[in-house]
Amino acid sequence: MKGIISGRAAIKWIFSAGTLGLMSAASLAPAQAPSSSQSPLGLMPLPSSITRGEGAFTVTPAGGGPSTFTYNYGQTHDARLEAAVRRALIRLGRTCGGEVLRSTIDHPAPTNPSLLINVTAPGEPVQTLDEDESYELRVTAQGGTLTAANDLGAIHGLETLLQLATTEQGACVLPVVTIRDVPRFRWRGFMLDVSRHFEPVAAVERTLDGMAAAKLNVFHWHLSDDQSFRAESKKFPRLTEGASEGEFYTQDQLREVVAYARARGIRVVPEFDMPGHGSSWIMAYPELAPAAPIKTLPVVYGMPTAVLDPTRKSTYKFINTLVDEMSRIFPDAYFHIGGDEVRGEAWLADPQISAFMKNKGYTKAAQLQAYFNQQLEEILKKHDKKMIGWDEILDPALPKTILIQSWRGEESLSDGARQGYQGILSAPYYLDGQKSSAQMYLADPVPADTTLTAEQQKLILGGEVCMWAEQLNTETMDSRVWPRTMAVAERFWSPQGDRDVSDMYRRLRINSLKLEDKGLRHISGPETVRRNLLLTRDPEALDVLASVLEPVDFHARSGLQHTNGWTALDRLVDAVVADPPSRQEVAGEVDAIAGNITVPPADPKLQLDLSGDVPDGRVPPREVAIRRLRQRFLSWQSAETRLLEDVQQTPRLSDAGVRAEQLGELAGVGLSSLAFLEGHTAPPPGWQEQQMSTLDAAAQPAALVRFTVLYAMRKLVLAAASQR
Amino acid sequence: MKGIISGRAAIKWIFSAGTLGLMSAASLAPAQAPSSSQSPLGLMPLPSSITRGEGAFTVTPAGGGPSTFTYNYGQTHDARLEAAVRRALIRLGRTCGGEVLRSTIDHPAPTNPSLLINVTAPGEPVQTLDEDESYELRVTAQGGTLTAANDLGAIHGLETLLQLATTEQGACVLPVVTIRDVPRFRWRGFMLDVSRHFEPVAAVERTLDGMAAAKLNVFHWHLSDDQSFRAESKKFPRLTEGASEGEFYTQDQLREVVAYARARGIRVVPEFDMPGHGSSWIMAYPELAPAAPIKTLPVVYGMPTAVLDPTRKSTYKFINTLVDEMSRIFPDAYFHIGGDEVRGEAWLADPQISAFMKNKGYTKAAQLQAYFNQQLEEILKKHDKKMIGWDEILDPALPKTILIQSWRGEESLSDGARQGYQGILSAPYYLDGQKSSAQMYLADPVPADTTLTAEQQKLILGGEVCMWAEQLNTETMDSRVWPRTMAVAERFWSPQGDRDVSDMYRRLRINSLKLEDKGLRHISGPETVRRNLLLTRDPEALDVLASVLEPVDFHARSGLQHTNGWTALDRLVDAVVADPPSRQEVAGEVDAIAGNITVPPADPKLQLDLSGDVPDGRVPPREVAIRRLRQRFLSWQSAETRLLEDVQQTPRLSDAGVRAEQLGELAGVGLSSLAFLEGHTAPPPGWQEQQMSTLDAAAQPAALVRFTVLYAMRKLVLAAASQR
Repeated sequence: MKGIISGRAAIKWIFSAGTLGLMSAASLAPAQAPSSSQSPLGLMPLPSSITRGEGAFTVTPAGGGPSTFTYNYGQTHDARLEAAVRRALIRLGRTCGGEVLRSTIDHPAPTNPSLLINVTAPGEPVQTLDEDESYELRVTAQGGTLTAANDLGAIHGLETLLQLATTEQGACVLPVVTIRDVPRFRWRGFMLDVSRHFEPVAAVERTLDGMAAAKLNVFHWHLSDDQSFRAESKKFPRLTEGASEGEFYTQDQLREVVAYARARGIRVVPEFDMPGHGSSWIMAYPELAPAAPIKTLPVVYGMPTAVLDPTRKSTYKFINTLVDEMSRIFPDAYFHIGGDEVRGEAWLADPQISAFMKNKGYTKAAQLQAYFNQQLEEILKKHDKKMIGWDEILDPALPKTILIQSWRGEESLSDGARQGYQGILSAPYYLDGQKSSAQMYLADPVPADTTLTAEQQKLILGGEVCMWAEQLNTETMDSRVWPRTMAVAERFWSPQGDRDVSDMYRRLRINSLKLEDKGLRHISGPETVRRNLLLTRDPEALDVLASVLEPVDFHARSGLQHTNGWTALDRLVDAVVADPPSRQEVAGEVDAIAGNITVPPADPKLQLDLSGDVPDGRVPPREVAIRRLRQRFLSWQSAETRLLEDVQQTPRLSDAGVRAEQLGELAGVGLSSLAFLEGHTAPPPGWQEQQMSTLDAAAQPAALVRFTVLYAMRKLVLAAASQR
Repeated sequence: MKGIISGRAAIKWIFSAGTLGLMSAASLAPAQAPSSSQSPLGLMPLPSSITRGEGAFTVTPAGGGPSTFTYNYGQTHDARLEAAVRRALIRLGRTCGGEVLRSTIDHPAPTNPSLLINVTAPGEPVQTLDEDESYELRVTAQGGTLTAANDLGAIHGLETLLQLATTEQGACVLPVVTIRDVPRFRWRGFMLDVSRHFEPVAAVERTLDGMAAAKLNVFHWHLSDDQSFRAESKKFPRLTEGASEGEFYTQDQLREVVAYARARGIRVVPEFDMPGHGSSWIMAYPELAPAAPIKTLPVVYGMPTAVLDPTRKSTYKFINTLVDEMSRIFPDAYFHIGGDEVRGEAWLADPQISAFMKNKGYTKAAQLQAYFNQQLEEILKKHDKKMIGWDEILDPALPKTILIQSWRGEESLSDGARQGYQGILSAPYYLDGQKSSAQMYLADPVPADTTLTAEQQKLILGGEVCMWAEQLNTETMDSRVWPRTMAVAERFWSPQGDRDVSDMYRRLRINSLKLEDKGLRHISGPETVRRNLLLTRDPEALDVLASVLEPVDFHARSGLQHTNGWTALDRLVDAVVADPPSRQEVAGEVDAIAGNITVPPADPKLQLDLSGDVPDGRVPPREVAIRRLRQRFLSWQSAETRLLEDVQQTPRLSDAGVRAEQLGELAGVGLSSLAFLEGHTAPPPGWQEQQMSTLDAAAQPAALVRFTVLYAMRKLVLAAASQR
């Protein structure tokens, strides 16, 4: 408590609740005293060390009586921390039901603040990779103390504080606990592609809000690709004038996002992808490329042959000017140069470039790319930037200061480390792969059975979740990103040994709802998409269908839909979410009935990901499980008829009819299974095969979506069939 | 078809549907041929003239087969119209389920375009009050022709085209029709207060989207008030630095909004409220005021005594500089100077101002305000601006060019007209009055029984819907504004005789859903607020309760809650919407059973607005109505228990318990009424009184909300009681 600063540092926050309306809930049964010491916490990512005690600090008493939450600082604090504390306490007010009284008038310093924030020093002027992010949060029945070396740790600690706050019997409490926390990896990133589809600043900023809740610390902004160039350049205005379709970030907006991220403990690493994926650059400035000028931005996704010319001095002069300009906007030590998927044949086909290669003794395009990267590295060094790029930049010609981002996978990452290069892992964390939270959660940048030496392991700095945008728009983004990204964020932050998938899902559900309350739209967004699909028709039946569907993966969708830049992303597949809670709920209900049943492996052609088929809480008692399943199957059954009419009336649902029919069939399978299980009677011969064939049919691709409950339903059928 | 321009004018839009997935809805029963000629249209506002024909133009055939929608221009077109057409066709694609193929490559001009757009000339460089807004839209089985004198009319016509498009049996059609349309009033405005609570640019722009759909043409932006000054001034930076809490529009953003509005046929009239409501000005520049400097922005709403000093030359110099600066951003001919609620006592208390008044022979503050306005008018004239202000600016000393906006009501408006002043009506259109769509719809700026002469009537230019923001934030805004504003927009646009409230509600429901599809959040926003209120608890029961509640009006809420600048607007009242569909639905269902029953007037103290208690479509058959009502009452009953638990667990719902209990009691009243009605038995003595007393208790104020179904339920009880 030493050195409390009075004056502006001691602004008082007061929650006063229970003053609304003429009648209050006081007439209800009196709330019981909170007993939070036994209820499981919902923290995510899990802290490295946690010790629970008895009792709790009461923020707002039961019944909503007036209460006061005050805070104060220890040795020092700066404006960034002050802003973070204010944001946190507004959010605490939302959870705890108090009115937050904000005063700009100075209050006397509280002698016993509800929260004391002890920070030794502010953070670095530009957040660094090596900055200390640890914190300690101690809550007693009298209040909390948050201790950190700098703002970064305190900002993380505030998120933990918000996750600790719960309401119990109408009271809002912080359980007594001591948390000592430090991240496992230093680079915990999230990449957003804004080139294929643009995302407005508001969408970017709420994504940063979600990242802060997940304690992610690097926002990797994929600002250019074949389809557009999204960052305003005053030196090269044609980049956005001609190659952004009018949707780009002004320099003011770019700076705003950088500041917004910094305020939340997040670095911003911009990516300008070169020399491949460069159609937008070349359309704007044809002199950058060896081939014929490009008249329009490519509509079809893939690997166009538009590649910068690495043999011309003017190319490097252009890049130098661009790096110089962008470095004034993006202060981070790293600069992402892309470097992936270079179509070398464009170089080889050009006589002048071929001659250059011959002169240098290069026989492969990769050698020319390494040459290009060497020049780039020199340019970046001149601007005090370190190079980061995708796997393809790895070449012995490059210095060991570069950082490799691996989209190719763990093996490629390890290769780099063995050669002494630092790396981060991205391959398992591609969100458009539509994998379950569990599968992504279990993928580890440095798995327990790694063959890397301890020294080599240190070169793996962490990982990045990647959100590519060929099949994404603003309406669908949040539901593709959240809550799954939070599961990966835990992998990056928490100890290697934390791998309890079932408990992860329990905590993910809580934090998913908290993210929505923070302003993310991953739950309400898809609801709106479904309502808009049907317009004047009641979306209830479609909601039921959507709850047991998820999108097929990127490659399946591309293959079936031929998704391109003109495709309107407004079909059934865009109205469902990845790994919805139904998978874990049905798995838990079926486990309660058939936990002892082993399901034989399914046809490998179905490529079922079963990692998410676990309960997300306690398995309910058998009777409860049966009741819930029956309600579920009945709701599927009654939805089918309405859905068939929805499909017939709604042009945008024209491909969804087969899924509606299958939902009804799945209901039939479920209800007859329950009937045999409850009657303890054996089904007739052939019954099992018939059910399995229905389930297999539902596993076939259709409407760009797949069912989430097929594995659990196989188990249910086998349990029914095992009745004697 | 003469004069078709080829080249860039003839970009082709192609909808190709039915290419998704492996299986399609083709396996379903074949869709029947559309027969749209008989189904009622959903146009809003109603056009001044409409003639329907047989058949329809098919945009997308049933079954989702590929189709092509092309467009072309007649004599001329400009970039604004081109952008409007592109936006419209993207939206048509959403309704019709096609993929919109956008090509930047020139196509040959289609010889028979699906839509031919004939515009004689572009609009004025700055949209004027007198600009022609009429259009003609003709649809035959072969396609449509949209004819207008200028862009404005065409932009309105495109909105009508979008409202015409419907899906029938899986086909998307435009019914054969000829519409000739011209607005009744020239000034059809919407005012948004962004001072009491700030709205980000994205929220402003989606509001403009809604305005365009409603054919409103003036966005009145209330940019300053006591609580803040929201428009960046480079001449007077302290206005936003010190008096905006960091939330304001940069000049770039202001210009962006003006451009966004212009693209949609909307003028932007900025309001800088003076000399009253001036705390923010005076806090930033104390020399503007006679009294002591202001240290903080007022947290309590009302009429602070902060008033500009009209006796100092420096005040006018300041205003002149500000008007000059803002005129460069806002090109509209009108400039709103506020002028309302001036606390004259601040002037009278100041010796120097008193002396000035004495010298001028003024005995009342109103005379000094008239003097102030005369100086202001001179300044505005110098900048080619016409003055608009609230009722208080009306004074014979002012020239007849000023425009009076009436918040005081019809009588005040008529007074102005009788004195020869132009006026617009706002008093009946205050959205925070929480009146029904019907009540606002029926209020007419020039009612049929007006006592104004024909010449005086011409002085009434129209009206403005007003959204004040003391009790508003970004989460709740859309649901306070929409869909009610669309009902008022029809009053401003459509013929005086269109007053069928029931049909208005039918069309309002359709267009409300279309607005949500356009990106407004008036339906999904409150859903999200409710989910966030409960967080990890299922919001279903709260949804049921909210569906039959609406907010109390501004004054009731202010009185009960003492709402101020610190109040967190996140209670039950902020999770319910004004005039929800439940009122019309229950009214229709009860009408089917008890249409012949007359309800005696309720206690006048209850101040019930019954204008919205009408069916919003056809009254269902009696048996259907009974079934729906029973389902409704059962859902209320089952919601009660869950709600009481929600309330007990959720601090922010602490005041909602009484409404939960009453919902259960209303269910009891409804179910027992249905029992007597179905059994054709008379209820026992005292039953009716008991039910009525339950209904009266539910009409008492609580939790800042009121029930929407009480009038219909009185009718139901009386019908049951009338059984013999």
